Parts: sequence; structure tokens; C-alpha cells
Amino acid sequence: MLIVAERINATRKSVREALQRKDEAFFIQEAKKQEAAGAHFIDVNAGTEASQEIENLPWLVELIQDEVGIPLSLDSANDQALARALRVYRKKEVMINSFTAEEERIKAILPLAKDYNALVVGLAMGEGGIPQTVEDRIKLVDKLVEAVDRYKIGRDKLFVDPLVVPIGTDHYQGKVFLETVKAVKEKYDEVQTICGLSNISYGMPNRRLLNRTFLVLALGYGLDASIIDPLDQEMMSSIYAASALLGYDEFCMNYLSAYRSGKLGS
Amino acid sequence: MLIVAERINATRKSVREALQRKDEAFFIQEAKKQEAAGAHFIDVNAGTEASQEIENLPWLVELIQDEVGIPLSLDSANDQALARALRVYRKKEVMINSFTAEEERIKAILPLAKDYNALVVGLAMGEGGIPQTVEDRIKLVDKLVEAVDRYKIGRDKLFVDPLVVPIGTDHYQGKVFLETVKAVKEKYDEVQTICGLSNISYGMPNRRLLNRTFLVLALGYGLDASIIDPLDQEMMSSIYAASALLGYDEFCMNYLSAYRSGKLGS
Repeated sequence: MLIVAERINATRKSVREALQRKDEAFFIQEAKKQEAAGAHFIDVNAGTEASQEIENLPWLVELIQDEVGIPLSLDSANDQALARALRVYRKKEVMINSFTAEEERIKAILPLAKDYNALVVGLAMGEGGIPQTVEDRIKLVDKLVEAVDRYKIGRDKLFVDPLVVPIGTDHYQGKVFLETVKAVKEKYDEVQTICGLSNISYGMPNRRLLNRTFLVLALGYGLDASIIDPLDQEMMSSIYAASALLGYDEFCMNYLSAYRSGKLGS
Repeated sequence: MLIVAERINATRKSVREALQRKDEAFFIQEAKKQEAAGAHFIDVNAGTEASQEIENLPWLVELIQDEVGIPLSLDSANDQALARALRVYRKKEVMINSFTAEEERIKAILPLAKDYNALVVGLAMGEGGIPQTVEDRIKLVDKLVEAVDRYKIGRDKLFVDPLVVPIGTDHYQGKVFLETVKAVKEKYDEVQTICGLSNISYGMPNRRLLNRTFLVLALGYGLDASIIDPLDQEMMSSIYAASALLGYDEFCMNYLSAYRSGKLGS
């Protein structure tokens, strides 16, 4: 399970405020803490207001990239912000998060992904929003795959996000997501799957319980990567446990070492 | 998810001691607590020493049956103890836990299951012990199904336990179990699946984390029932969450009601 660390995201109030006062120490600490907790990528989201994002995303990338050993995930739908951030980025590996199955977004984002040899997250979302059924989501996945093929980007660079819809609005949507993950893996051998979790529990009580339980189920259905808060110890414990139980963790070495370093709690 | 409550089991020291002093209050309280926590069956295990079991199992059944509204699961491999316990049992529904794919066990247990119209747990274990692969376990499941067919017991009465082997001894055994559950459900529509969990984590640290994570994975693979301690609030929370996330809980009503009655913790 590839872990993309989600905390540097301008939808969080503390991040917005730190961006306004250009608080370098805040961001460096957030990045380092997430790396120490076991992240494989640091996601960097500088908000959605275009003029600010075009300034703030490259600023964040320049600030953080040399402070951590792991690569960054540039989280924006704005191709100008992405282009400027990629220009200042010096590390080898990078993830672009994200494009949709809309032709306009494909044309804006995929040339950048190609130029920088980036991993790229594709959302199963089209002109009509997020489809309700597995079949219709797979049609959008077909479009995402066709798009990376067209830009001669390796399919192994594509991370499909089937998109999570709250079970509070439709109690079948958890299963729809899980079945979509399975269907993507069956249809496209090389393509990987990723998701953000927190939408699943929107409007429900005890959200963290639902989020980590959903991640365990998703791992069982073949999910390859997730965008989470690695400082959530119960979430990380669930990932270590599920990986060991699914046979991904040889001799349970990672689980045992996480336990010894106190990462699994009591 | 059908919950068979496991606490009245003579492998536990407190239960053995309570049996020795014939502590009626202890067993009545254990049974009532487990029913209140959400159990659907109370498992009753009176130990493995034949002479004592033949006395103690009917004593326990007689003592507990009218104290709870839910049925009992008679946990023994001893057909004499089972026969005497069934003779004093007055409730309509009953589970017999368990028989194996060995011909001698089939002949001893299945006539009782037939006579009392019981649900019956069949273990994927034969003369050669527990097989290492999914294929070999399914061969034993074939024998279990053939056996209930032979005794004209409905296949919907059979609960197959694919048997959990510790991941600490072979880190693929979690996956072997999960794949066996899936294969049973695919091959035999009407047959149900059940398991005890705690073996999976034998020899590992933080066993409760592994046990509840494994149960969530197993639910995702189609497990119908489990033998657990319903007083383990984290375990029960995981079951409520996973059932809602898999679409088994219409409008998430059970999850929400468990939350309101304080069963999900904070």
C-alpha cells in the first residue's frame, strides 16, 4: 500500500492560515512528521483560487522538496499552477494529482505528466459527474486509460481513483467503490488504484472508524494506494495489520517492526 | 454477519473454575452480557475431557437456555455429550459446533444434526489435518457438503469453517483463508461460512488489532458468521462499520443505532 500523505491541503484551515503568513516552519514540520510516520509521497495542495495557487504551489514545492527524502504529489487541477510547480521541482519521482475523464482536463494535464515522466492520478469522473454504477465508472476508466495511451504515458504510471461517494447518501456506494477497484484491477493489469477516504463517512458519526474500516476492505479488494493522514495511528495500524493478513508483508516483518517502534499502539 | 458468542468456553480458566464450583450466577451473567452486546447465538463449550463434558454440557444448556432469548451453539466434538445436551434443550433453533470431514466424525455428528434439525458447523479438516492450499481445503468442503447431502440435511444448514492458521507461522495463510471463503461461496450458493478468529494472530503482538482487521477482510470476502467475543467493543464496532460499508445495513440503520446506544465508542 503506497501512502500519499494528505495533511498539507489548503482545505484545512490551519494550512490556509499558514499559507497566508508564509509559515515555512509549519510546512517543513508537517512534511517531516508525515515522512517519519511512514508516508511514501507528500501531497501538496495550495488551494483552489487560481491566482493564489499559481504562486503558492511552486512556493510550497520549493520549500518542502529538500526537507524530506520522499517525493511530492502535486495536488491541483490547475495546469498553470502544476506547470510552474514542476519547473521548480528537482526530485526524480513525482505524482500529479489529478485529471478527470473530461477531454479539456486530459489535454491540460497529460502533456505535463508526459514531459515530467510523472505518476498521474485519474478520477473516474466525467462531464456528467460521478456515475452511480460500477459499469458506468469503468467506462470512464476506459477513457482515462485511452488518454494515457494517446499521450504515450505508460499505463503503470496511471493511478485510477474510482471516487468515494458517502454511504450516508446511498448505502450501496461503499460496495460500488470496492467493486470498481476490483474491476479496474481485473481489466487493466498494469493500472494502479488509489483513493481518498474521508468522503465515505461524510455526515456519519465516528468517521475515523468508518474511514479505516473502509481502507481495510479496499485493501482486500486490491487497492494499491491511498491518500490519508499518516499521523492517524489507528489508520496506520489497520494498514500494517491488513497488509500482513493479506500476505503482502513477508514474514510479517513490517508489522513486527511497526510494533517494536510503538506505531501500533497497545 | 451472524455473531456466535464465544466466552463460555472451558479453554478459558475462569470458565473451567466456574464449572468446577458449578457457579450458576457466573454462567447466567456471561450469557446475558453476550446477548445484550449483540450476539445471535451463545456458544457453550464444557471442555474436552469426555467424562466431565458429558455431565457439564447438558448442565450448562439446562442452566442457560431459559435465561436468554437467543439460541445456543453446542460446542463439542463428543457425540455423547451433544446427544445428552440436545435431549435437555427446549428451544427451536440450535447450532452444533462442529464436525470434520473425517468419516468417523460425520457418522457420529450428522445423525444428531438431522434429528434435531440443527445448524451444523463443518471444519475444513480431514484425516491429514488442515490443508495448506485453497484447492485442498475446497476438496474437504466438497466432502462436508456431500456428507450433509447424504444425511438429507439442507445445505443451508451447513456452516463451513475454512479454518484459520496463524500468519506468524506462514504469512500466506490469511489470504488462503480469505480465498477459501470466496471459493466456498462461489461453488456452493446455499452453504454459509463461519470462523473463529483468534488463531490468525497466534504468536503475534497486538492480537486484537489483527483479529478485528481480519474479520473486516473476511466480511469483504463474503464470510457469513463468526465466533467472537461480543464484549470486545472494537471488534463489534468494526463489524457495524464493515456491514454498513459493504451495503448490508439498509440506510446504515444498525450502525447509527449502535452509535446512539454507545456501542461504537467515541
